[in-house]
Amino acid sequence: MLRIKYDDMVEKFESILLKKGFNENVARKSAENFANNSLDGVYSHGVNRFPRVISYIEKGYIKVDAEPTVEGRIGGFERWNGNLAMGNTNAVSAMDRAIELAKEHGIGIVALGNTNHWMRGGTFGWQAANAGMIGMCWTNTMPNMPAWGTKDRNIGNNPFIMAIPRSNQEHVVVDCAMAQFSYGKIEETKLKGQQLPVVGGFDQAGNATTDPVEIEKTWRVLPIGFWKGSGLSIAFDLIAAVLSGANSTTAIGKKAEDEYGLSQIFIVIDPKHMNSVELTDAIIDEVIEDIKNSEKAENCNTIFYPGEMEINTRRDNLENGIPVMEEIWEQIEKL
Amino acid sequence: MLRIKYDDMVEKFESILLKKGFNENVARKSAENFANNSLDGVYSHGVNRFPRVISYIEKGYIKVDAEPTVEGRIGGFERWNGNLAMGNTNAVSAMDRAIELAKEHGIGIVALGNTNHWMRGGTFGWQAANAGMIGMCWTNTMPNMPAWGTKDRNIGNNPFIMAIPRSNQEHVVVDCAMAQFSYGKIEETKLKGQQLPVVGGFDQAGNATTDPVEIEKTWRVLPIGFWKGSGLSIAFDLIAAVLSGANSTTAIGKKAEDEYGLSQIFIVIDPKHMNSVELTDAIIDEVIEDIKNSEKAENCNTIFYPGEMEINTRRDNLENGIPVMEEIWEQIEKL
Repeated sequence: MLRIKYDDMVEKFESILLKKGFNENVARKSAENFANNSLDGVYSHGVNRFPRVISYIEKGYIKVDAEPTVEGRIGGFERWNGNLAMGNTNAVSAMDRAIELAKEHGIGIVALGNTNHWMRGGTFGWQAANAGMIGMCWTNTMPNMPAWGTKDRNIGNNPFIMAIPRSNQEHVVVDCAMAQFSYGKIEETKLKGQQLPVVGGFDQAGNATTDPVEIEKTWRVLPIGFWKGSGLSIAFDLIAAVLSGANSTTAIGKKAEDEYGLSQIFIVIDPKHMNSVELTDAIIDEVIEDIKNSEKAENCNTIFYPGEMEINTRRDNLENGIPVMEEIWEQIEKL
Repeated sequence: MLRIKYDDMVEKFESILLKKGFNENVARKSAENFANNSLDGVYSHGVNRFPRVISYIEKGYIKVDAEPTVEGRIGGFERWNGNLAMGNTNAVSAMDRAIELAKEHGIGIVALGNTNHWMRGGTFGWQAANAGMIGMCWTNTMPNMPAWGTKDRNIGNNPFIMAIPRSNQEHVVVDCAMAQFSYGKIEETKLKGQQLPVVGGFDQAGNATTDPVEIEKTWRVLPIGFWKGSGLSIAFDLIAAVLSGANSTTAIGKKAEDEYGLSQIFIVIDPKHMNSVELTDAIIDEVIEDIKNSEKAENCNTIFYPGEMEINTRRDNLENGIPVMEEIWEQIEKL
C-alpha cells in the first residue's frame, strides 16, 4: 500500500484532467474533490473511482467543455442545468450557489438537473458546514434497488447528506445512502469470504440474508429500514426530478446502462441569521457530550458522533499520506 | 368497534377543546387535525391519543391560552416560538406560514421551538401537497432510542416527512420515524403474542430480536438502517434545535419525564415557479407507473406507492365512518 501526500494527489489528478481537456478551474476543483474524498477515507469515491470517471469522459457521458448554467430564479430557489459537465465540480458550484442564496434569503435551494455522479456526497455537507451553514443535499442515481414489495431494481440508493457546523470545524455530517450496503461493500465482503454485519439483501428464495454471495445472485439489496428506506428513496428522487425538471431514477434507467444525467438538490440554511455561534456550539456540544457519555453497547469500543471518524481519518492521512493500492496508482499514472 | 362519521368526530373534539378553554380557531383546527389523522388510519395519533393530550393540558404542558409568535425573520427563513400552545395547531400554523414563504421566496422554512407533540407528521405533508407544494418537515422527540453503539435512550425517533403534490390530489407522502417500530407497534405485537416482521430492538444479551417481549425488557429499540438511522436522528435533532434556538432531544430529556417543549422544522418549495403542473404530474406518474409495473416480491399482493394506503383508508373511513374502540369513545364522551 502506497501513502500519497494530499498535495501530490491533487496535482496528479489535476494534470490528468487538464490533459483530458478540462479548463484550469474545473480541473483544479475536481482534482481537489477526488483528493478530499480520499483524504477522508472514502477511497471508493476518490482515488479508486478516478479511472472510471476518466472512462466516462471517453464514452461521452461527461462533457469536458461544459459548464452548469442557470435556468430559473425566484428568491432563494434556483434551477441549474448541469449540461453533463463534470459531476463533482457541478455539485461544488451548486452548493456554493446555495450558500450564497442562504446568506441573502436565510435559506437557499439549488435544483441541479442533467448532471453527473457527484462522487462522495458528504464532501458537499462539509463544504456547507465549513462556510458556517447547515447543509442538506441529495442525489438520485440509476435504478439499483427494488422498491419494497418488488423484485426489480427500480429505485435508487439516493445518498442523503445533512451537515451542522461547529466553530471548531469539527462538524456533524451524516452521509447516508438509502441502501443498507453499497455494491462495493457487498463485493468486498464476498471477496473476504465474510458475512455482512446485518441483513443486506434477498437470496433467490426471497429470504433476507447476510451472505454477499447470495445477494449477488439476485442484486435485490435491502433499503435501510426495509419499507421505510424504499419510501424515502422514492420521495428524494421525486423532489430532485420535479424541482430540476429533469431525470428521475426511472428516466435515468430508461436512457442507458450507465449512470449519467442525474438530478440533485442542495439546501442551505444560515443559522447565523438567528443564533450567535456560541449558542449553536452550545446546543451541539450538549447533544454530543450526552451521547458520548452513554453506556457503551456490547462490542463498542468508542462512541463516535456522525462525521467524527472522517475527522480522525483525515488527520491521519494528512500526516502520513493517503493510502492507495499500488495497482490503482499505476493505472492512474498511465492516464 | 364503532364507526364515527368524520363530521361528528370533529364536532365532538371541538366541543371538548372549547370546554377546556381553547379559543374557537384553535379548537376547530386542532379537532380537525385529530379527526384527519384518524380518517387516514393513524388512530394512534388521532382518536386514541386524544384523552392523553387532554391530560397534558391538565398537567400544564399544553397552554390553552397560548399562540405561536414570530421571533425572527430573514427572507424565506422564520423562527417561531410555539409558547407551549397546542402542538398540532402550532404545526398547522407553521406549515401554513412556510407555504406563504415559498410562494414569495421560492423556498420557505419555519423553525418552531418550544412547541408540543404534533400528533401525526404526515398530515402536514398532506397540507403542503394540498397547496400544490413540496413539503418536508420533521420534529424531535423525547429521548426514546439508543444512539448506535450505546445502551441508553439518548436520541429521538424524530419523524421525517416528505410530500410531493399531484394535481389529482393523490399525493406522494412519506411519513417515517427513525425507529424501525413505534412503541405502540411493539406493544400491540406483544399483546397479540406475535413476532415483529423484522428485528426491532435488542434483548438483554445485546442480540437483535423480533420478540417484542424481549425488547420491552430493554427498550433498546433499533433505528432504521441500524447505524444509519442513528446518524439521521442526531442530525434532524440538531438542525431543529439550532434553527429554532430551542430544545434538543437531550435538553427535552433533562427537563422532564414527559414529552413537551419540542423543536420542529417545516420546509416548503413551490415547484410551480419552475414547472407546469403537467410536467410535475408527468415526472411523478412515470415513476409510480414503473414501480407498480414491477415484478411483485414474495408475499406481496399489491404494490403501493408512499401515501397510497392512506388514500384508500381515507376513502373507506369517509364513507363508512372512522373505526373507534367503544372504550375509547366512552372515555372521550366523559372529557
